Amino acid sequence: MTVANSVGIVTAQKAVFDQPITLSSGAALPRYELMYETYGTLNANASNAILICHALSGHHHVAGKYAETDKAAGWWDNMVGPGKPIDTDRFFVIGLNNLGGCHGSTGPSSINPETGKPYGSTFPLVLVRDWVETQARLADRLGIKQFAAVIGGSLGGMQAMRWAISHPERVRHCLVIASAPKLTAQNIAFNDVARQAILTDPEFHGGDYYEHGVVPKRGLRLARMLGHITYLSDDGMGEKFGRELKSGEYKYGFDVEFQIESYLRYQGDKFSGMFDANTYLLMTKALDYFDPGRHFGGDLVAALKTTLAKFLVVSFTSDWRFSPARSREIVKALLDARRPVSYAEIESAHGHDAFLMDDEPYFGVMRAYLNNIAKEIAA
Amino acid sequence: MTVANSVGIVTAQKAVFDQPITLSSGAALPRYELMYETYGTLNANASNAILICHALSGHHHVAGKYAETDKAAGWWDNMVGPGKPIDTDRFFVIGLNNLGGCHGSTGPSSINPETGKPYGSTFPLVLVRDWVETQARLADRLGIKQFAAVIGGSLGGMQAMRWAISHPERVRHCLVIASAPKLTAQNIAFNDVARQAILTDPEFHGGDYYEHGVVPKRGLRLARMLGHITYLSDDGMGEKFGRELKSGEYKYGFDVEFQIESYLRYQGDKFSGMFDANTYLLMTKALDYFDPGRHFGGDLVAALKTTLAKFLVVSFTSDWRFSPARSREIVKALLDARRPVSYAEIESAHGHDAFLMDDEPYFGVMRAYLNNIAKEIAA
Repeated sequence: MTVANSVGIVTAQKAVFDQPITLSSGAALPRYELMYETYGTLNANASNAILICHALSGHHHVAGKYAETDKAAGWWDNMVGPGKPIDTDRFFVIGLNNLGGCHGSTGPSSINPETGKPYGSTFPLVLVRDWVETQARLADRLGIKQFAAVIGGSLGGMQAMRWAISHPERVRHCLVIASAPKLTAQNIAFNDVARQAILTDPEFHGGDYYEHGVVPKRGLRLARMLGHITYLSDDGMGEKFGRELKSGEYKYGFDVEFQIESYLRYQGDKFSGMFDANTYLLMTKALDYFDPGRHFGGDLVAALKTTLAKFLVVSFTSDWRFSPARSREIVKALLDARRPVSYAEIESAHGHDAFLMDDEPYFGVMRAYLNNIAKEIAA
Repeated sequence: MTVANSVGIVTAQKAVFDQPITLSSGAALPRYELMYETYGTLNANASNAILICHALSGHHHVAGKYAETDKAAGWWDNMVGPGKPIDTDRFFVIGLNNLGGCHGSTGPSSINPETGKPYGSTFPLVLVRDWVETQARLADRLGIKQFAAVIGGSLGGMQAMRWAISHPERVRHCLVIASAPKLTAQNIAFNDVARQAILTDPEFHGGDYYEHGVVPKRGLRLARMLGHITYLSDDGMGEKFGRELKSGEYKYGFDVEFQIESYLRYQGDKFSGMFDANTYLLMTKALDYFDPGRHFGGDLVAALKTTLAKFLVVSFTSDWRFSPARSREIVKALLDARRPVSYAEIESAHGHDAFLMDDEPYFGVMRAYLNNIAKEIAA
């Protein structure tokens, strides 16, 4: 990867929405807040805006740092910045924390103004289409009638697809990376095991753990460990960890023996100390429910016929969570719907996580595609 | 499948071993018992004996029923019986519950005669090679110097391989089905998440839950749910369950919504009510530790050069727990070791579980191979 500049020091902002919103489930929220960040400058006719939709555990802090001393930058800092594929010298880029999140946007851990207590179990489930509606309101607030592009990986890619279907006139380009048209039974199965780990944790307290002063850490830790297995490829994991023993000898016990155990437990521990379990449940349900063909008689082609955007679909060869075959389903449905689509299948050993990683062929595709978008804007 | 007769009503037997055994870990057991069953008749020169080694959750009840009213027969009743591929009219077949099991053989839930309490956390971990030693003692007891065949699927296939390496002169044929030469990092990762679910269950009590009158049901349930995902193929799960909703409509909650959730939770509930969590831990560690090349400088070929058996290796195309590629590693190592091997890669949608299921091409291969063994004996 070429070294490129960062967007530098950034500040998160909060948008407060006092109009009530009725969600797909029928539940309503009287008001809500969304945390977001922007990078770059919106041009005079607001034609250079890009929305970044986050995946299961993501948030609004996409690029840059809050302070020079921050150890890590935003979660997609390698992709978003001046001179980077999503070039903040040319685009006005928005990252937000989705409704139901746990990074400042209104979610299960937020205080319900009507009760003065955290929403907990009373926070409604949210569909991908609901997120798109809240994101559309944020776009209105920022004076953006149409996005140059809506971009997302994994669950973020589902939001990008949903944007193109729900608001065809508001999306010029839709970038769907390492995603799927809907979950398979196996995808749902993994999610359900993760949820059961949280739901059956004695410290879950039916979702109202906040008032008990505990968190269902054990369950969330297991959920994350399991998730991590599905983010990495078998081969990639093998190359990185193999069967290496931490101490070189069998210990004949249940403490960490193999390097892979050490890695997974560390990831689980770290995550369970900082993420909200109710948000995790909500995000996995949004994944399960996503099925854009559902209101079109189960026909994804019919759903995509309503779109006006141009599409870029990207997949990674070793991704078995959302395999290239799933991306090809999207591409085929777009072709059958006679919509313009480019497709790149990137050779990678990094599994599903590849969409977050530096990889020149992948970045090259993104750079070229976004360069063309920038040219359209300049023209 | 052709309908064939059952071995009928069978009775489990118990072999008591009063000679102490020192395990690979260095731990010793002063005495132990093994539950076993036999089907068919041992011929005069004891040359028609077949040993069936069980997988993670298996046991000695391989075929037949204990009473006419039993709902289910033994776990491999479709494979073992008169006129079946492992033909009890021609072979004397032995099934046993491995040391450390929870179906009557000495294991963590057994009473330690020295303390009068269940072994619990004090029960030693057992390697595949230790099982082979205990099985060899059982063979001695039954007057079997050499097996016509040692047969196993999955973890059972590892035992068969280990038999051929540890006791070359005692195995004429080694049948390794849906197995692997050793676990990958991903295999170990799944096992570790399963173990962590059990180990962090508040009712695990460090393995000594028996004396607390509880069992770590939540953890064992999660472990089994996760296991089941790896036993089925993505496609097979999709064909069987798809995204079918139980009620036809989204419920917007965490109760069962999709058929696959119903299936997995049912499997988890059932298993966690009848299997011992400590045995589950022990079995997964035996899997992790299995690495027959380890004492041969990491060289599986060198390990297999010590064998005298003929091998049949069988894999199933949709098995992603132990994929055909893993079986081909075994085949290649055998060829490199200049050992005789036949290999069948069976087209199947049933994933890892295929080794337990009726499938004519698979049963055809088994039948033909075992028919040849029977002919050798008759000759």
